[in-house]
Amino acid sequence: MTEKVAIVPATHTTPPAKFSHGVRKGNILQVAGQVGFLPAEEGKPPTTAGPTLRAQTLQTFANVKAILEEGGATWDDVMMMRVYLTDVDHFAEMNEIYNAYFEEQGLKAPASARTTVYVGLPKGLLIEIDALAVLDA
Amino acid sequence: MTEKVAIVPATHTTPPAKFSHGVRKGNILQVAGQVGFLPAEEGKPPTTAGPTLRAQTLQTFANVKAILEEGGATWDDVMMMRVYLTDVDHFAEMNEIYNAYFEEQGLKAPASARTTVYVGLPKGLLIEIDALAVLDA
Amino acid sequence: MTEKVAIVPATHTTPPAKFSHGVRKGNILQVAGQVGFLPAEEGKPPTTAGPTLRAQTLQTFANVKAILEEGGATWDDVMMMRVYLTDVDHFAEMNEIYNAYFEEQGLKAPASARTTVYVGLPKGLLIEIDALAVLDA
Repeated sequence: MTEKVAIVPATHTTPPAKFSHGVRKGNILQVAGQVGFLPAEEGKPPTTAGPTLRAQTLQTFANVKAILEEGGATWDDVMMMRVYLTDVDHFAEMNEIYNAYFEEQGLKAPASARTTVYVGLPKGLLIEIDALAVLDA
Repeated sequence: MTEKVAIVPATHTTPPAKFSHGVRKGNILQVAGQVGFLPAEEGKPPTTAGPTLRAQTLQTFANVKAILEEGGATWDDVMMMRVYLTDVDHFAEMNEIYNAYFEEQGLKAPASARTTVYVGLPKGLLIEIDALAVLDA
Repeated sequence: MTEKVAIVPATHTTPPAKFSHGVRKGNILQVAGQVGFLPAEEGKPPTTAGPTLRAQTLQTFANVKAILEEGGATWDDVMMMRVYLTDVDHFAEMNEIYNAYFEEQGLKAPASARTTVYVGLPKGLLIEIDALAVLDA
């Protein structure tokens, strides 16, 4: 598989512009910035899993994971996660949620690298995550 | 081509530090953060294409594209674009410009992934974009 | 070496969550966001090299470099560096430090690409840097 393919989980909301939720080419898989939107419902605008950091973080992980799996990858293939928070005070809680989530996932490979920075996001969003994966060659 | 090579379009302004506008090694091509600077003119400081989001976005696309082409790639090879805006209120307009631009480019491969976040940029700049491309092996 | 391996320099502080300071898979090496923390001392919390941009930047470079080397890479293999500053007014000084540092390193390959943006970071931190390297295949 060397051709570039779009990875578009059926349940994902339509991106707000002409970009793909994920793309894979050869053994490189890139996941676009995911947020805490629930699976799309026809005729309804994108809706977050809730106003809390926990709800949005867990939904964001689910959205990233769906793209990885649709592209033939798993969390174990992820090399880098970029975590964008809006509030420095959310760091400790995000790390707790992060650790518990990945504990549950039962990773076999070492944890990915990560960078976390604090930026602006569209109103109502507390977290955004993107990921770069390298699949077995 | 496995050696790391710098990609330096002749018309680009000199980077403000010792980094390359683009680098390629094997089939990986990385484009550094590009902004809306017009082609360099000798003896003149870097100048943006204009104060509007539209002018700067289109010039930024042109600058990214010049690096891709100089490195033997096209928009079709781009896996990820990172869009940095300074103002959440620019999101809708940027998406319009983005969609129209890529419509015009006549992509053959699926659209790249993308992450957009809101950060600070040097005075006068409204948008910055970098890109990761994977060429055909 | 196709297996994903964690790169954990012995002197690095423990990450604040379950992520790796660096990971390598095949010829791709990703360095997580590094900051200006001094080598870890048992029983002491992570401590920056100092309150100045210079001290933190040089320590951050040292921390990135340690990961590159532990993973079998050098600065010459770096394709992209992402520099996160908290203050636009630090740009000129960071560039000076950046240029002097890489001058001293005696790079043989072209300089990497770079993106610099201005974000929030945890209290006391002025700079964070992550890096993507591609090793010789």
